[in-house]
Amino acid sequence: MTDNASSRTPLTLLGTGTMGTALARAWLAAGHPVTVWNRTPARAEALAAEGATVAASVAQAVAANRLVVACLLDDTSVGEALSDADLSGRDLVDLTTGTPAQGRARAAWAKARGARFLDAGIMAVPPMIGSPDSGAFVFYSGSAALFEECRDVLAVPAGTRYVGTDPGFAALHDVALLSAMYGMFGGVTHAFALIRREDIAPRDFAPLLVSWLTAMAPAALETADRLESGDYTKNVVSNLAMQVAGNATFLRTADEQGVSQELLRPYFDLMERRLADGHGDEDTTGVVDLLGR
Amino acid sequence: MTDNASSRTPLTLLGTGTMGTALARAWLAAGHPVTVWNRTPARAEALAAEGATVAASVAQAVAANRLVVACLLDDTSVGEALSDADLSGRDLVDLTTGTPAQGRARAAWAKARGARFLDAGIMAVPPMIGSPDSGAFVFYSGSAALFEECRDVLAVPAGTRYVGTDPGFAALHDVALLSAMYGMFGGVTHAFALIRREDIAPRDFAPLLVSWLTAMAPAALETADRLESGDYTKNVVSNLAMQVAGNATFLRTADEQGVSQELLRPYFDLMERRLADGHGDEDTTGVVDLLGR
Repeated sequence: MTDNASSRTPLTLLGTGTMGTALARAWLAAGHPVTVWNRTPARAEALAAEGATVAASVAQAVAANRLVVACLLDDTSVGEALSDADLSGRDLVDLTTGTPAQGRARAAWAKARGARFLDAGIMAVPPMIGSPDSGAFVFYSGSAALFEECRDVLAVPAGTRYVGTDPGFAALHDVALLSAMYGMFGGVTHAFALIRREDIAPRDFAPLLVSWLTAMAPAALETADRLESGDYTKNVVSNLAMQVAGNATFLRTADEQGVSQELLRPYFDLMERRLADGHGDEDTTGVVDLLGR
Repeated sequence: MTDNASSRTPLTLLGTGTMGTALARAWLAAGHPVTVWNRTPARAEALAAEGATVAASVAQAVAANRLVVACLLDDTSVGEALSDADLSGRDLVDLTTGTPAQGRARAAWAKARGARFLDAGIMAVPPMIGSPDSGAFVFYSGSAALFEECRDVLAVPAGTRYVGTDPGFAALHDVALLSAMYGMFGGVTHAFALIRREDIAPRDFAPLLVSWLTAMAPAALETADRLESGDYTKNVVSNLAMQVAGNATFLRTADEQGVSQELLRPYFDLMERRLADGHGDEDTTGVVDLLGR
């Protein structure tokens, strides 16, 4: 938060859903003038009482400020909302969730309309926005000059992390991290299902699970080293052949506990394919190579 | 390590593979007399130079000490190795990897032969054994009296964690934590595959991944609270309906990057089934219920 009027950057926000509203509140609380637009005007009007200016149309909202932030349902909504707006000389920061290809196409589309562009991927849920200690951050990619110019105002709702001029990289980082998280959630789900019918309290078991996953997560650093060196056999402690030999115990335990194997099988199948390809002396890094088609 | 002769517990170790050898070395280094046996004697003899007594037969090894630790290939090997040994009055601690049902059956088998029994699940790889700071630990379950009596000697190679009198619980905790880890590794594999063909260095990306997974792992604590309360809708920030709406972006990004969907699909399919069952206002906890057959 700042009391320095010169650092207050007026901006326009398109989209006042749960995330957009949280963003607007953070900027308003920090003293930045915010003009908002929403397809359903009622959802924008709640912010008027908190100091936001509600624009009657996208054209009016875009005309109001050079910096235009979009936080809409999906990429199609961005194209539709801005189809008739004059983006010439504007700076568009797209916080709408999308794929890397959508980010790249939207960057080209913005450039053709005379706007600078940053795509973004939000690594947070709305309650984390505007709380400096929440750990929330946003990936940005695209125009480096635009990022430098507006990084202070972008840093108000959440931490910023610029990942390159390729406008697809913000979404790629976002999707990659969230995909990994869903893998972990799948593993956690399987673990809870295994203990579920036994006299083991989930609350007693969960801290063990969190400690173990936290201790094992840094294995990704070694995977990265192996991917960069191309040598998947160096300093391997538990090799693929040994690990695959253990798979039967995991699958059999699932059967014993009446739990479907469906969340375990795909990764085990890939490990077994890599072993069958003659890579038993590697660790599990080679599975990354199998996954690309 | 101790210099107090009275705290030196003589013990027998069956199985001197990589893990067994690491265990034997830790006990020998701490001054505990160790008698070893291995099906292939040559692998036990290396330990003789380090002070171990090599037994010529299982019968001799079991006769040597009251405390008998087994660290063999699998549960079948334990039954075969000990088929003719006199276990009466002995304490058997089974560090061999197995399923909960195998642990329970082996406990009944040991009891019928007059031995007390602890099953164990080792949460470590051999290089972590004997290093107090490695974080290595072993789950134990079965005879509480036996665990109390030998906890100090068991704590020499790795930390100890007793999880109950049910002899299946050590294996169940072991398998559950490792299954969750493989889920996380599957997610990490997918994430690396997504960035692989882009100009993003795995070594730059990996620390982001580790931080993110570490930040998200504690979500398992909330899952445990929901499982215990039975209310999967309380304090939900990002509900199942919203999360499922995002699945298409993850799957589409996989396609764009030429990466198979096979590691993402099973968990997403379960989320979608739970949503279709009318639970859109829950978080993802309900997927645990779907996984049990």
